[in-house]
Amino acid sequence: MTTCCKTKCLEEAQAYIQELKTLKPCLYDKDFLRTWDKSYDDIRTVLLVAQILEDLYCANVSCRIFESGIAASVFRDNSTRTRFSFSFAASLLGLKISDLDEEKSQIAHGETVRETANMISFMTEVIGIRDDKWIGQGHKYMVEVAEAVAEGSKEGVLPQKPCLVNLQCDEDHPTQAMADLLHLVKHFGGMDKLKGKKVAMTWAYSPSYGKPLSVPQGIIALLPRLGMDVVLAHPKGYELLPEIIEAGKKHAADNGGSLTVCNSMDEAFKDADVVYPKSWAPLEIMQERVRLPSREGPEQKKLEERALAMNAEHKEWECTEEKMKLTKDGKALYMHCLPADITGVSCKEGEVAASVFERYRIDTYKEAGHKPYIIASMIITSKFKDPAAVMEHLIKEKKPRVIPL
Amino acid sequence: MTTCCKTKCLEEAQAYIQELKTLKPCLYDKDFLRTWDKSYDDIRTVLLVAQILEDLYCANVSCRIFESGIAASVFRDNSTRTRFSFSFAASLLGLKISDLDEEKSQIAHGETVRETANMISFMTEVIGIRDDKWIGQGHKYMVEVAEAVAEGSKEGVLPQKPCLVNLQCDEDHPTQAMADLLHLVKHFGGMDKLKGKKVAMTWAYSPSYGKPLSVPQGIIALLPRLGMDVVLAHPKGYELLPEIIEAGKKHAADNGGSLTVCNSMDEAFKDADVVYPKSWAPLEIMQERVRLPSREGPEQKKLEERALAMNAEHKEWECTEEKMKLTKDGKALYMHCLPADITGVSCKEGEVAASVFERYRIDTYKEAGHKPYIIASMIITSKFKDPAAVMEHLIKEKKPRVIPL
Amino acid sequence: MTTCCKTKCLEEAQAYIQELKTLKPCLYDKDFLRTWDKSYDDIRTVLLVAQILEDLYCANVSCRIFESGIAASVFRDNSTRTRFSFSFAASLLGLKISDLDEEKSQIAHGETVRETANMISFMTEVIGIRDDKWIGQGHKYMVEVAEAVAEGSKEGVLPQKPCLVNLQCDEDHPTQAMADLLHLVKHFGGMDKLKGKKVAMTWAYSPSYGKPLSVPQGIIALLPRLGMDVVLAHPKGYELLPEIIEAGKKHAADNGGSLTVCNSMDEAFKDADVVYPKSWAPLEIMQERVRLPSREGPEQKKLEERALAMNAEHKEWECTEEKMKLTKDGKALYMHCLPADITGVSCKEGEVAASVFERYRIDTYKEAGHKPYIIASMIITSKFKDPAAVMEHLIKEKKPRVIPL
Repeated sequence: MTTCCKTKCLEEAQAYIQELKTLKPCLYDKDFLRTWDKSYDDIRTVLLVAQILEDLYCANVSCRIFESGIAASVFRDNSTRTRFSFSFAASLLGLKISDLDEEKSQIAHGETVRETANMISFMTEVIGIRDDKWIGQGHKYMVEVAEAVAEGSKEGVLPQKPCLVNLQCDEDHPTQAMADLLHLVKHFGGMDKLKGKKVAMTWAYSPSYGKPLSVPQGIIALLPRLGMDVVLAHPKGYELLPEIIEAGKKHAADNGGSLTVCNSMDEAFKDADVVYPKSWAPLEIMQERVRLPSREGPEQKKLEERALAMNAEHKEWECTEEKMKLTKDGKALYMHCLPADITGVSCKEGEVAASVFERYRIDTYKEAGHKPYIIASMIITSKFKDPAAVMEHLIKEKKPRVIPL
Repeated sequence: MTTCCKTKCLEEAQAYIQELKTLKPCLYDKDFLRTWDKSYDDIRTVLLVAQILEDLYCANVSCRIFESGIAASVFRDNSTRTRFSFSFAASLLGLKISDLDEEKSQIAHGETVRETANMISFMTEVIGIRDDKWIGQGHKYMVEVAEAVAEGSKEGVLPQKPCLVNLQCDEDHPTQAMADLLHLVKHFGGMDKLKGKKVAMTWAYSPSYGKPLSVPQGIIALLPRLGMDVVLAHPKGYELLPEIIEAGKKHAADNGGSLTVCNSMDEAFKDADVVYPKSWAPLEIMQERVRLPSREGPEQKKLEERALAMNAEHKEWECTEEKMKLTKDGKALYMHCLPADITGVSCKEGEVAASVFERYRIDTYKEAGHKPYIIASMIITSKFKDPAAVMEHLIKEKKPRVIPL
Repeated sequence: MTTCCKTKCLEEAQAYIQELKTLKPCLYDKDFLRTWDKSYDDIRTVLLVAQILEDLYCANVSCRIFESGIAASVFRDNSTRTRFSFSFAASLLGLKISDLDEEKSQIAHGETVRETANMISFMTEVIGIRDDKWIGQGHKYMVEVAEAVAEGSKEGVLPQKPCLVNLQCDEDHPTQAMADLLHLVKHFGGMDKLKGKKVAMTWAYSPSYGKPLSVPQGIIALLPRLGMDVVLAHPKGYELLPEIIEAGKKHAADNGGSLTVCNSMDEAFKDADVVYPKSWAPLEIMQERVRLPSREGPEQKKLEERALAMNAEHKEWECTEEKMKLTKDGKALYMHCLPADITGVSCKEGEVAASVFERYRIDTYKEAGHKPYIIASMIITSKFKDPAAVMEHLIKEKKPRVIPL
């Protein structure tokens, strides 16, 4: 990193801070569970703070805000990217991770959620939760935890109230959707450049079972409100939750964006500026899965077989070179939350042709790279009333993150 | 936190420091394994330092004492509360947790305890151990570890000797008992207010197997020495280790407290100021469990069945509303180390009626909330000759824990 | 630690820094995978920086170089010592550990190595990897990861390129070999004192299966280049990889050392200044193991039985008191990477007699104690162009590691 680059980063950060000061967010002391519960200024604030943090990191300015304190994580599903992103964000701000491994805890022992939530929060600044496998459960669990720590804080149990960051639930995956949005802002050169751009959020074939609906739901609820024209496409039977479609349509009004639904990948790809082909599970089967008496066993196995058979009827939903030709100048930006099912690489037949993925591979890595900053931004905007002041404080202190030698 | 609150916290901390200076503890360079091995001044010192740390945390004064260093943990039994409490304490002081997961280590490989103890200690300031499942083993293991790192330190293997903190063994659970004591001090408004108060430490019914004896043992050994009148009550067959009863009785003399034993919950509850109804396993079965040739298998299973059948004969040992009416003005303070077996909530029939638990639920959370500070205090009082000077240093530096914006 | 001791440590550190300044290493921005890829100045640089870090730790000078940042670890085999050593090094420099637990990640999901490598690296300064179980795989995997993060860095995915530290692969165990070397330097009183000393790196009997070849390979490739006369001895069938023997012989030329191979433990021990008797698996069986279609199952089991039967033919390869008498004045330094298979202690018949091991036990602990500093040194020498300047900066700042009270 040259001195010149650093200067440029700091200048950019200063400009973002000025923009930040014009906004009226309502994020302080709140949790970040679903983007559609947030105002347009909230979204812009989180985005701007994330961009400033990226600039400060690049300029080797320490973003430590905490001398001590815990970032607690609860992962009820596997994770690589998000687990590391949460670690990155925690480390950036000076927090230490403490993971609630439910198998090694006494939770089986009949402990209630509200009790556990308080027990892990005595010196906790943020709780990050992933709970995305069971429809109707993940968001509900997060609300329960949020209410418990709010009670604990009000009753004097907790000296500070930890904020919650949704690291993927059954409804939304806000750290992903916001990182995706930041990727688009960088790609098109500004938030105002997103207006009128067409995004194809489409289902794609995968040989694997039970992929959550939260990524496409996050995208269709968030991008229309930036003025983008989002087309959701999927085979019949792969509908998303209707209330989230509604949320997406409602918010679209804010900036003249739109959300439409169809059952044709070609139609969605036609003249698209951005394509996001990604597999998810059939809604009805995911709902039946929750209703089964047990979470293991032969009935669950049978359901999985049904879902895989259903997927297999739609192998033509693949992001091939031919499909890419349908997009605007044949050059739409391909996006994915990773890992993708790449035909001939990670599976025999999958979501995307190897040559298409390879062309955009580095782009998808960059897309993922925004997540740590988005998470750190969600923490800062919840813990501090005046995030612009926090950013200015860091720049004024200018403590180097790595000794500058 | 208002400026006024912070000022009050700092004034309180200053007062505690003055009190601290009058004591002559013998904690420096020692381990904290059992309260009954400690002097009365030792107990008061740990308590005072914990109280000061609570005030500093509340006043946003950083308690970082270490710029680098490890807090190693060894959990030979499940844990939520204590695991997080140890993380909190470590983070508060600037240490990073490194957990010895015996399954992922090479210990199965015939490595000796003294070797492992040194291998995890090259830059380790404290080792926290939970080993509470096997009577006659836990304390013994901790002593072995303590001797190993003492040898390593003496022989120049370790540049510093880590102190040991007992996070629950088969004999004592000192971080719990001390946190419970701090809860009582706060509840009654001072350590001197504890004199003459009656505490009912009683067995209670639970449908679960193998609960350690260390919590009741910790209570009956510690509280009498503060001048409290402790009544231990349990059905026949649920005796505690006789040497610990002796320790409790011996120390009771110090401040005019007492320890008596009976077999009636009602008798214990009668006019009690504090009740602590909690299940534990039958002593003889716990001793037989250790003597069985294998720690798994059908013989262990049979033993478990015998214990559960024995428990089931005493379902009337439940902390009901009726029983609570027997206590002083019907308003004794209910205590529990959590998680409690709550009738109709976490099990069909358990230790405590749901309405009783709900009334004191927030109190039990606060009780648990002292544990991180107790652990941090145990570390500080072992690592520094003059804890009062350390506290004064932190107040003088007044580095904010969170940037004050 | 007395003031006098601290002064001595700091003076020693200053002398090492002067020596450091005379070297021309080529470590900056490089990975540390195998010692034989490194120059003699590289080896000396890593060693000197480790020695300076030991002195600074001893003098209570903080070695924090990072205000935030992650040290990512990937353990594909069990580990106690190395896992903790990596934690120690990370903590010493101010980094937080984030462990990639491949079972809890989405890697099974078809993710490629190059993708995962980038996903765990957005704010990562170092990646430590252990992958030692499968011949032909471990080093290959590390190279793949290294190439992936180099690409990510070049393409702007990663704001900084993490360096890789090999925490044991199928070929080398450089943090062990370098710690062993530092142990020898301390034992004999300087690097120049190693010239002409005879080292017996010999196979020894063990009742366990599949021990990696990387420790003996690391020793025979590294020690000859310091001018030592290394004799490798093993029964027929326990050959090491021929290309590493070649590397050892080639480098021996640099300082007049030598590497010879024989099949007699007695011959190797004869007049040896240092003995390193340690078990490893038969090469051919390790190679067959990799070729089997599955990594589990009855064929693997059969192979294990064959290997153990083969081991059992060589129980006389034990480091007994008799064998020790063959060494220089009967007083050779016994070395081991730990844990050792000690006859009558950790197994019925093993690598070393109990009385021999006990005499050198504390020495082997000290040997292991250098590893955290070696790892920290590998990180610093890769992340900074001018390690001497970094060391001088730390001494100038003189921030205490623990508050000096």
